[in-house]
Amino acid sequence: MNIGLDIMGGDFAPLEAIKGLELYFNLQRTTNNVQLHLFGSLPEHLPLPTDNITIVPTTQVIGMEEHPTKALKEKPDSSIAVGFAHLAQGKIDAFISAGNTGAMMVGSLFSIKAIEGILRPTIGAYMPRENGKLGWLLDAGINSDCKPENLEQFALLGSIFAEEVLGYDRPKVGLINIGEEEGKGNLLAQAAYPLLRQNKQLNFIGNIEGRDVFLDEADVMVCEGFTGNVILKLAESIHGLVQRRNVHDEFFDRFEFEQYGGVPVLGVNKPVIIGHGISHAKAFLNMIRIAEKMIEKDVIGKIKQSLQPSA
Amino acid sequence: MNIGLDIMGGDFAPLEAIKGLELYFNLQRTTNNVQLHLFGSLPEHLPLPTDNITIVPTTQVIGMEEHPTKALKEKPDSSIAVGFAHLAQGKIDAFISAGNTGAMMVGSLFSIKAIEGILRPTIGAYMPRENGKLGWLLDAGINSDCKPENLEQFALLGSIFAEEVLGYDRPKVGLINIGEEEGKGNLLAQAAYPLLRQNKQLNFIGNIEGRDVFLDEADVMVCEGFTGNVILKLAESIHGLVQRRNVHDEFFDRFEFEQYGGVPVLGVNKPVIIGHGISHAKAFLNMIRIAEKMIEKDVIGKIKQSLQPSA
Repeated sequence: MNIGLDIMGGDFAPLEAIKGLELYFNLQRTTNNVQLHLFGSLPEHLPLPTDNITIVPTTQVIGMEEHPTKALKEKPDSSIAVGFAHLAQGKIDAFISAGNTGAMMVGSLFSIKAIEGILRPTIGAYMPRENGKLGWLLDAGINSDCKPENLEQFALLGSIFAEEVLGYDRPKVGLINIGEEEGKGNLLAQAAYPLLRQNKQLNFIGNIEGRDVFLDEADVMVCEGFTGNVILKLAESIHGLVQRRNVHDEFFDRFEFEQYGGVPVLGVNKPVIIGHGISHAKAFLNMIRIAEKMIEKDVIGKIKQSLQPSA
Repeated sequence: MNIGLDIMGGDFAPLEAIKGLELYFNLQRTTNNVQLHLFGSLPEHLPLPTDNITIVPTTQVIGMEEHPTKALKEKPDSSIAVGFAHLAQGKIDAFISAGNTGAMMVGSLFSIKAIEGILRPTIGAYMPRENGKLGWLLDAGINSDCKPENLEQFALLGSIFAEEVLGYDRPKVGLINIGEEEGKGNLLAQAAYPLLRQNKQLNFIGNIEGRDVFLDEADVMVCEGFTGNVILKLAESIHGLVQRRNVHDEFFDRFEFEQYGGVPVLGVNKPVIIGHGISHAKAFLNMIRIAEKMIEKDVIGKIKQSLQPSA
């Protein structure tokens, strides 16, 4: 399989991406024949096994603060633009970047496009849970105004990702709400509930509340991107609080989100992984692993299948 | 001043309410001539200074899970129904209960009613902040679908409460959102921003994000009740996590929400304070203090003033 990696993305580019690659090759946990395609301007001496690496030199970089659509148009030789071109042409099977999130979203939608039938592709977020597992919250901020059908699709996309990549068996899906019973919540949550309940592809457990996010209740937690983004950023802030208060605890250490690597853009035609701007080596390692797993398990194929009328 | 207290409300009624009264009288921090009116069925021997206490015996109790409107109708001699009747008749100046929240809301709206010009009364929530102060988040779950004008009024109501009762000088108001700049967010947040910015009665500091809730950014945090309730319940869950992980820290101890007593129903014509079902003595003490301060500072009068066209 061919995995593309934007070596210019993130605050510590390209050094941490390279270190992540080193980790990846040193651990050699893969049984897949992985070829890494690096997009960007690379250091002269790469401490890497060159057999497994193809370098695609690019001359431009899209900055973290640039306007996505404008930047992609004006920088056709940027690592992100060239990466998406390779992805669209089938030269790579997945594309990873810790760069400009907006440019990664726009690049996904314009080059490989949304899967037919998907109304709104989505990005999720990992949530540390007291039981030691990770929760998968979506949407995490891309779709701030949603229709009930969007939430149903987020649940489906999230369930497939949680099952195939996070390793859950029939992941429990919870609808984030402000009460336990059906009929509670705002108009969106009220309308989404029956859609989730009726969808036989989902293991829907009903409403969950803010207090359940870090607990065992649900593996996949669904909401519109406004609430999801507030939850994500609030959860991220706990790490800083824990550090400044000098609290040392295994559970609270798991609020350091950088360790989880990146998140996939779910609902587009090929695996695209977006990393946090502050990604370090371990995050890059994890992103490569996620891409590898998405290809290996044919997550995209399974999403397409789930959208068939017979599914 | 005359303060009414529902002695039957809360999981530990009437014992903890009585203990709270004891604390209140023992501390004697008030310079106001406070007469407490107790609604309910009281123990025979009250360990209280009877000079300052008027007992209003009632024979019925509205349970925590009862349907609010139905219960108020079918139990006219319940402590909540009689309390609101006294409040509406001016026999008491404020009413406190740790009982059925829905019945307290419905009772407020039907007996003393919303202040003229207030579109939607609201309930807030205290948020522990790293700087040692409390934040004031509203709406905390009563109004899950809102219009921009509702958020503007929540900001105004919250600012007056934060200034008069929580002691902030020109409290900083933040709009909870998913980005820093104006124009970010869902349709509601986008439309609410200019209303908040243009309102000269507000010290509006712009958007705040999930990561800012526990920090110094804003004293008053405004959002619709869906997001607000998710934030509140997520914050409440941190206390249990901290306890189960055996973390001992002054800041994280402040996530025990019971210590803050109750919250006012803001936007109705008289002070109404609603307590948590699990309220203990200290919470009742704090609720009496909040009622006392709301009367002393004429919070209702100031809210009415702020709604005048000349304000």
